[in-house]
Amino acid sequence: MTTQPILLNEDEIEALRREVGTSTLMGKTIASHIKDVEAFMALPLDVPGHGEAGGYEHNRHKQNYTYMNLAGRLFLVTQDDKYAKFVRDLLAMYAEKYLTFDFHVQKNTNPTGRLFHQILNEHCWLMFTSLAYSCVASTMSEQERQTVIDRVFDPMLDMFTVKYGHDFDRIHNHGIWAVAAVGICGLAVGKPEYLEMSVYGLERNETGGFLAQISKLFAPSGYYIEGPYYHRYAIRPLCVLAEVVHRHMPELDIYNYKDQVIGNTVQALLSTAYPNGEFPALNDASRTMGITDMGVQVAVSVYSKHYGMNDNILGMAKIQDKVWMHPCGLELSNAYEAAVAERKIGLPFIPSVELNEGPNGDRGAQGFVRMQDKTGDVSQLVMNYGQHGMGHGNFDTLGISFFNRGQEVLREYGFGRWVNVEPKFGGRYLDENKSYARQTIAHNAVTVDQTCQNNFDVAKADSVHGLPHFFKVDDERINGMSAFANEHYDGLGMQRSVFMLNLDELEAPLLLDLYRLNGEGEHQYDYSHQYQGQVIRTNFDYQANQELHTLGDDFGYQHLWNVASGQVDGPALVSWLQNNQYYTWLGTSTQQQGEVIFTRTGANDPSFNLRSEPAFLLRAKGKSTLFASVLETHGYFNEEFEQSVNARGQVDNITVIGSNEIASVVEITTKSSTVTVMVSNNASATDATEHNVEFNGKTFSWTGFYSLEIANQSSQEK
Amino acid sequence: MTTQPILLNEDEIEALRREVGTSTLMGKTIASHIKDVEAFMALPLDVPGHGEAGGYEHNRHKQNYTYMNLAGRLFLVTQDDKYAKFVRDLLAMYAEKYLTFDFHVQKNTNPTGRLFHQILNEHCWLMFTSLAYSCVASTMSEQERQTVIDRVFDPMLDMFTVKYGHDFDRIHNHGIWAVAAVGICGLAVGKPEYLEMSVYGLERNETGGFLAQISKLFAPSGYYIEGPYYHRYAIRPLCVLAEVVHRHMPELDIYNYKDQVIGNTVQALLSTAYPNGEFPALNDASRTMGITDMGVQVAVSVYSKHYGMNDNILGMAKIQDKVWMHPCGLELSNAYEAAVAERKIGLPFIPSVELNEGPNGDRGAQGFVRMQDKTGDVSQLVMNYGQHGMGHGNFDTLGISFFNRGQEVLREYGFGRWVNVEPKFGGRYLDENKSYARQTIAHNAVTVDQTCQNNFDVAKADSVHGLPHFFKVDDERINGMSAFANEHYDGLGMQRSVFMLNLDELEAPLLLDLYRLNGEGEHQYDYSHQYQGQVIRTNFDYQANQELHTLGDDFGYQHLWNVASGQVDGPALVSWLQNNQYYTWLGTSTQQQGEVIFTRTGANDPSFNLRSEPAFLLRAKGKSTLFASVLETHGYFNEEFEQSVNARGQVDNITVIGSNEIASVVEITTKSSTVTVMVSNNASATDATEHNVEFNGKTFSWTGFYSLEIANQSSQEK
Repeated sequence: MTTQPILLNEDEIEALRREVGTSTLMGKTIASHIKDVEAFMALPLDVPGHGEAGGYEHNRHKQNYTYMNLAGRLFLVTQDDKYAKFVRDLLAMYAEKYLTFDFHVQKNTNPTGRLFHQILNEHCWLMFTSLAYSCVASTMSEQERQTVIDRVFDPMLDMFTVKYGHDFDRIHNHGIWAVAAVGICGLAVGKPEYLEMSVYGLERNETGGFLAQISKLFAPSGYYIEGPYYHRYAIRPLCVLAEVVHRHMPELDIYNYKDQVIGNTVQALLSTAYPNGEFPALNDASRTMGITDMGVQVAVSVYSKHYGMNDNILGMAKIQDKVWMHPCGLELSNAYEAAVAERKIGLPFIPSVELNEGPNGDRGAQGFVRMQDKTGDVSQLVMNYGQHGMGHGNFDTLGISFFNRGQEVLREYGFGRWVNVEPKFGGRYLDENKSYARQTIAHNAVTVDQTCQNNFDVAKADSVHGLPHFFKVDDERINGMSAFANEHYDGLGMQRSVFMLNLDELEAPLLLDLYRLNGEGEHQYDYSHQYQGQVIRTNFDYQANQELHTLGDDFGYQHLWNVASGQVDGPALVSWLQNNQYYTWLGTSTQQQGEVIFTRTGANDPSFNLRSEPAFLLRAKGKSTLFASVLETHGYFNEEFEQSVNARGQVDNITVIGSNEIASVVEITTKSSTVTVMVSNNASATDATEHNVEFNGKTFSWTGFYSLEIANQSSQEK
Repeated sequence: MTTQPILLNEDEIEALRREVGTSTLMGKTIASHIKDVEAFMALPLDVPGHGEAGGYEHNRHKQNYTYMNLAGRLFLVTQDDKYAKFVRDLLAMYAEKYLTFDFHVQKNTNPTGRLFHQILNEHCWLMFTSLAYSCVASTMSEQERQTVIDRVFDPMLDMFTVKYGHDFDRIHNHGIWAVAAVGICGLAVGKPEYLEMSVYGLERNETGGFLAQISKLFAPSGYYIEGPYYHRYAIRPLCVLAEVVHRHMPELDIYNYKDQVIGNTVQALLSTAYPNGEFPALNDASRTMGITDMGVQVAVSVYSKHYGMNDNILGMAKIQDKVWMHPCGLELSNAYEAAVAERKIGLPFIPSVELNEGPNGDRGAQGFVRMQDKTGDVSQLVMNYGQHGMGHGNFDTLGISFFNRGQEVLREYGFGRWVNVEPKFGGRYLDENKSYARQTIAHNAVTVDQTCQNNFDVAKADSVHGLPHFFKVDDERINGMSAFANEHYDGLGMQRSVFMLNLDELEAPLLLDLYRLNGEGEHQYDYSHQYQGQVIRTNFDYQANQELHTLGDDFGYQHLWNVASGQVDGPALVSWLQNNQYYTWLGTSTQQQGEVIFTRTGANDPSFNLRSEPAFLLRAKGKSTLFASVLETHGYFNEEFEQSVNARGQVDNITVIGSNEIASVVEITTKSSTVTVMVSNNASATDATEHNVEFNGKTFSWTGFYSLEIANQSSQEK
């Protein structure tokens, strides 16, 4: 029997056809795909030879499979043969040339393909092209089909399962592309044994294959160790192959496999996203990857079909403004149309979530706390207290990022890489990714003695993890999380407790951060903050340096210019303007005396590989130390219309009342209230633990992990 | 008779009323005003005392008049008394308090008001509040009206025409606010003699008043000497007062006054705008001011009513997405609705235009050349070869800026100022505006011997101007302009000739720039380029400095860090990525040997007043020199979707064939053609002048200002 479309049947195709020309999400999706495919079809067909990563040849092969994948389905949906002809003609050219290409010269650890410098890309090519072929095979002659099978598909299947068979069963995000490509191509060429191989592994012994991959790649929470950027890359073949297995091996009941591990991990990925849909750049990651990625579009469509719809899924579809051109996407599109007809679908407000890490969920976690202000704007606080992300791991345990008003405020630098920009080292990772972007000082964390956590030793970092203390998000006034990291600097325990406080007098949740370092000897602690925008004011004098030197020689410090610095005694205030928004940071430590240093990246950057970005750090020297700071979001500036309101904010002061092994107590003063926050430092505390601490002759008592007291100043004064 | 609405009659009010709730531009405008006014009305009324510029009090008075102005008309349009009550109540509070406020303490050269630190703002208050009063006066009791007149309006009229009478007749952009405020208030309080005074001046001797202002402020081209940023500030009271005079002194036929000077100057202002509607930051100016400014909305509405509609006006209305809430705006809204019903209204494509300067149009000009690429995207090239902009003038004669793909590529820094940001020196001009932003080196120009044009002497700069050579924009292949500036550096003549070339093989017009310096002795020439984004590649080795020093000690150089530099021999290539777009610059000079220096602003900036921005300059040392460069726009990068195409561009080389007093000849080589451009350097040339020059034994001959020859390489090779 001639190969039939692998992913959809006749009824489903007809249902999609009815969407053509409509203004639904599916209608818009189809129109957009038609526009893109036709623009590409207007170019002469080309199957080029070898090229550099990110170069013309690389891009062309990628475009070829991308548009074949869409054209195959567009042929079915529109019944216009021009799309089928495009796929047929291009496949014929590949059949003519493929075996004339030798394998690329090996340049990195990934085996090389005949089209691409690494087989990962060749897997992508095969998965998408097999799907396209399945859509148009019925329009090809027997000989045309056989030529493509003999000269492209079979050689590729052989390469992936024999020549590179040793790599096929590796549990890795790349591995999902391998099994998806081989399994789907097997179906396309009428050799279902390849699908079996892909699902169960070459050896059928649970060490490889799709089922082993999805069983082992994710934590019980669904979190993927390398972070959302790599997670979203794996999610596409995962969802596509899942849908194929669902249709062709229904006996596996894949969507319910292992307590719905697929739905669980899609949900986990989505739950990391900032309110605007971008993913926090945890570990090596682009700053702009988000749920609009095509893979996440597929995942959201699959999730909505097989795991149920809700307003957050619909909100994501709204951001995506597209769906997967597939029956799963149609289900989502229909649900969206029905929903907007009866109510307003806003941006998603994803609940706060703690995603545990490790095969058993006991190797720390990633915390995502969200809180809305009165206007509905979502502030999101992210803290990493889980595992090191393997080869892509950044050394930033207890690092945080903070987002509100549509922008990341305490920022991740993201990776040192221009993906697919050929003149920038072929789009590969740049040296500065290691020497700067992954170092502790590049993050919103405390760097001890100008070194990196675990001395930038990946093996050591992989062997340790953070220890969750509490994650509490049910109060209207205060939400927060706390964790320890005791194995990241020798002989030093670290604990970070971060909160968002909803105070009546403030326009947005106040970020409160307590970073405690506890151990032997004297150290230098750099409490750093990666911001963006223009410094508006400070409450201390600083000196801008007349010539610039680096802040240090190693561990990322060699890339930081020391731009300006000032001594502080007590709380230091740094206020800045980021786009339309004012932010004021007030920070101090138990050392009282310290130094604020303003830095800028770009030193020792011989090829302009770094972006020029500012940061400031509060440096304290001494024994065990508690840093305490608040970050207020306030006011508004519009340069275009020359409007500015509330440029100074409401928070006046922050004081550390005391900190010891039991607890830390800080006091925040605003224009109208005094806020006392007491936090447990006792790693064995529970919700029932009673805390009593005395600082400066005053006793503070509470039950549970923390306590909040707000005293209204005007009522005090009366 | 009770005061009636000054700007619209009953029929017009009814016509506006019919727009409420519609989706027309006027309907959207009314809805937007209602939303804004209601949000403000929800706050408690407040008439505060003195405050800092940009501070709460300043902002509040400004908001009070802004929303009274809208509320007055909304009362008429909606017939809802709540808007009238808001105006009445607020006026009553002003009446109670105004005379209890003493005059502010003088802080700058502008006289002080009782509400604001300078009477300019008090003029604004009076104009808008008088208009609001005229809309609601019929709802007030005689006593309420008299109280406001006695305690606010009359004292203000007296202040402006008696106490500060010496300032009232000054010909200046501020002067238009003064006459508009006084004339309109006079009508509102039933004292038309104030309107007469405003129109004809206090002395009625043509040295002051509105007619003198509009006769003298603008060049014959309509250009305003201080540039678009200040022009758009003056255009609002100008148009409002014009409409008042049109209605209350129809005998003046104001819209035809002096050959339609009002329409002419509005047209001139609009014709400076970049394709996205933003104004080039000529002289002291914000980088984000554009046609969406409320004043320009009023101007576009007035223009369309009294001077005629066209697709560029409609395109601007599309960018504005609003109109003036007035019969003039309704006319525009109706025209827009009619137009979009029958055709697509795109962004405006304003014709290229040369705007002459000076009272007689003989003091140089500002040139604006525009060219579209195949996709319709507009490239705009701006060159200043006119006058110095008085106290707000930058020292950048022959400076250029370049815009395409929705962004400024060769950039203006804009002013050193955060308008209305109170903690930044009360929102006033910062020291760095003089020490950096206005200096020659801050611009895309050539700085000679590390000094500023005219040694930063405003009086000297005001006394000289550029000399237009040619401005030719009628060819499909090549558009360009050329000018001399011979009095800006002692003993040195300068000529800049800039072109856009449409070459088949390029994605966008190629910018070609020939900058010639001619005079006695040896000099250092810094040919600088203000860009934004990330350096992608160069064709020469450079060394990033291990420590940063400033590039010099004065004339703006003290604010530039010397980041990296490299020696070049022949054409230097610098390629960068700005957002989604690659740009490649190839530049050389007759000196061959030179140095490329990469700089960044921020040195000697003790209060973080400067933005951190990159630039590069090609430095040549020697006698008379010609710099020649091209700037290619190519390719596409999308980080979010990880796409990159054509990252390297098509242009390979640029060579100076020769340059002398008669002409300059350069050759550009692309992957597929060799382009020769010959340009006349003869200041007395005309379209009929024959040029013959011999360089390296080859003779180049042409008639007119320049000639272009394109040789296809593949045809040559055959």
